[in-house]
Amino acid sequence: MSTELELMGQRAKAAAYALSSLNSAQKNNILQAFHAAFLKNSGKIASANAQDILNGRENGLSAALLDRLTFDVRRVESSAAALSDVIGLPDPVGRATGGITHPNGMEITKITVPLGVIGMIYEARPNVTIDAAALCIKSGNAVILRGGKEAINSNKAIVSVMRDALDALGLPADCVQLVEDTSRASATAMMHLNGYIDVLIPRGGAGLISAVVQNASVPVIETGAGNCHIYVDENADIAMAAEIVFNAKTSRPSVCNACEKLLIHEKVAKWALPLIAEKLRTKDVQIVGDESACAILDTAIPAQEEDWATEYLDYKIAVKVVKNADEAIAHINRYSTHHSETIVTENYSNAEKFLRAVDSAAVYVNASTRFTDGGEFGFGAEIGISTQKLHVRGPIGLEGLVTTKYMIRGAGQVRA
Amino acid sequence: MSTELELMGQRAKAAAYALSSLNSAQKNNILQAFHAAFLKNSGKIASANAQDILNGRENGLSAALLDRLTFDVRRVESSAAALSDVIGLPDPVGRATGGITHPNGMEITKITVPLGVIGMIYEARPNVTIDAAALCIKSGNAVILRGGKEAINSNKAIVSVMRDALDALGLPADCVQLVEDTSRASATAMMHLNGYIDVLIPRGGAGLISAVVQNASVPVIETGAGNCHIYVDENADIAMAAEIVFNAKTSRPSVCNACEKLLIHEKVAKWALPLIAEKLRTKDVQIVGDESACAILDTAIPAQEEDWATEYLDYKIAVKVVKNADEAIAHINRYSTHHSETIVTENYSNAEKFLRAVDSAAVYVNASTRFTDGGEFGFGAEIGISTQKLHVRGPIGLEGLVTTKYMIRGAGQVRA
Repeated sequence: MSTELELMGQRAKAAAYALSSLNSAQKNNILQAFHAAFLKNSGKIASANAQDILNGRENGLSAALLDRLTFDVRRVESSAAALSDVIGLPDPVGRATGGITHPNGMEITKITVPLGVIGMIYEARPNVTIDAAALCIKSGNAVILRGGKEAINSNKAIVSVMRDALDALGLPADCVQLVEDTSRASATAMMHLNGYIDVLIPRGGAGLISAVVQNASVPVIETGAGNCHIYVDENADIAMAAEIVFNAKTSRPSVCNACEKLLIHEKVAKWALPLIAEKLRTKDVQIVGDESACAILDTAIPAQEEDWATEYLDYKIAVKVVKNADEAIAHINRYSTHHSETIVTENYSNAEKFLRAVDSAAVYVNASTRFTDGGEFGFGAEIGISTQKLHVRGPIGLEGLVTTKYMIRGAGQVRA
Repeated sequence: MSTELELMGQRAKAAAYALSSLNSAQKNNILQAFHAAFLKNSGKIASANAQDILNGRENGLSAALLDRLTFDVRRVESSAAALSDVIGLPDPVGRATGGITHPNGMEITKITVPLGVIGMIYEARPNVTIDAAALCIKSGNAVILRGGKEAINSNKAIVSVMRDALDALGLPADCVQLVEDTSRASATAMMHLNGYIDVLIPRGGAGLISAVVQNASVPVIETGAGNCHIYVDENADIAMAAEIVFNAKTSRPSVCNACEKLLIHEKVAKWALPLIAEKLRTKDVQIVGDESACAILDTAIPAQEEDWATEYLDYKIAVKVVKNADEAIAHINRYSTHHSETIVTENYSNAEKFLRAVDSAAVYVNASTRFTDGGEFGFGAEIGISTQKLHVRGPIGLEGLVTTKYMIRGAGQVRA
């Protein structure tokens, strides 16, 4: 496997070199060709997907997983349509982001360039195959894709359509490659493809992300885990708090920006908690709580220590009563996955303190955590949400897929 | 060791939290206090260093290593003086680098914040202890330092001076911590201090860097290895080429931005190579070469395959004759450590092609590779030179020691 992946890595490097010399119009041409090819081959892709769905049913995949796996003609068309949005985005490559003229006259320019080769390890979601390839091409990067095994037939069909389109344009098909071996060994080999993979982006469950972070020797952008908190302060507008908690918890519980924990100031907990709980009950949200929360809410189940660190991704929330904003901040900085956190308050000082002191990618005052998303933040598209601090933090748009180089134009200068 | 380092990590996190709330004046106050304390304690530090030098002599350290280890009163004062430069640099924290107002009215601001806790593993150079601590403090980060074992007495003295100064200001001494165990186990433990070390920066030889890159599970900024190339094109000004090669090779052969390889166009090699070699001979530079180079230069020794990938860090250079700029670019992209490369040419198209196609942190036309340096690039100071593509590439100044967070100020917004 390792040798096979090394060969893929070599081909990706060569393709990346070709991609890096394309201008914006040429890269958009590729995406336009993908768009046309997906519309033309939507039936072929949908029937490959039908085989995956059939296999998934036989293997007892849950209804939720089958839904994420489904890629029928309508969904292919919708993914193709999203390519037009990517075409419309500004090219992240070739922007001068800094530089000086050296006192000796050399012109030093810092300019954005593609990362090179991006590796993606992700779950069984065929749309990610298209989204990721499109963002990589737009940012001038070759991509090596390794999707979940349940989607292998869909992914083969999708990648074959893109490779044929590249070929027809006279460009290296290896700009987009699929790892067809979906064993654990192929993921491990990708994690150690130093010299070929410039950055590896894992997308998926906490287990996958943690395995990649612990084992990879190639540079990694950690994504996705979201143990998100909402803190309802003493001076909160409680009706607003109830709306925000309800939205953040129930509008889409399976995503990483959903709220998992509610912290509430002890001075308002007694009357505010029942109001918030009543609203959550309309969606059958299960509540676990610390001792004080359980004393207020009959229906709450006592929380265990591990609850505070758990991302439920379900209609479930853990509630803790705190003394003040400082205790809330300390609790969040201890247990959070550093994704998204909200304070609901009318107190200016507490709001500003929370924004500064909470060590997470996105920190909110009086708004739902659900807004942490490339589209909502104005990026037009995203390849994941980074919860690490190096390179990119929060939604990863096109700007997260480039690096910089220094170009220095001299006239014979030497260093004293 | 692991438990001890975990405790250091916890203390560093707490200190980082305190540091992150300081404003620029408060951080500069710390550096001012360090400055005064180093001047006051220069004798104490110098005598601790004298012990290291004595031990180093007994252990047979080379003259070059002993020179790098030496930290006498004059050098302590010079390091203290450099703190004033850091005080004068702009604060990298708290700059708004982006953001939008969401159509729903939320104000989304992207703002620079400290990374948190920085780990440094480095060689036996006491000045790095001061430089690294100063840059970390200025950027609001706590730092855990692990210097080479040969400098342990110097480092203990230096760090104790800084910790006392922090203490006297009523700030956590743990903003600056020293790992006193200089065994391999302590380095390994730092590589796996996930959750405490936000970024690990190794500085030193190729072996150390590679061990960290291969083994660390914490995020790493790879630094330093420099197999730098100069390509002399068909249309080069050969006198200029000779000056640039001479400067890049001999002005300081032991540093990472020194030139290690000379590529030269076949049409000029025959007469230009002897001129360049003659200049190098004045500094007794040993020349190895490919077949064509050896045919031109009597004194050249045949190069082995491994020569092309080797960073000599010595008065030695490998020479290869190439057909054209494309062959030079392909050779560089294959063998380079992606640090710094130069083309010497008067041909505009080849210059621009080289700038674009060479995949290195700093790419030059008609100037010495020796300029790749934070000071020369206008950063005022550097903590190393990154040869990786994530987060920061090239000299790592204060801007490389911060990350960003999104602050979102709302008025009750929820997501549809």
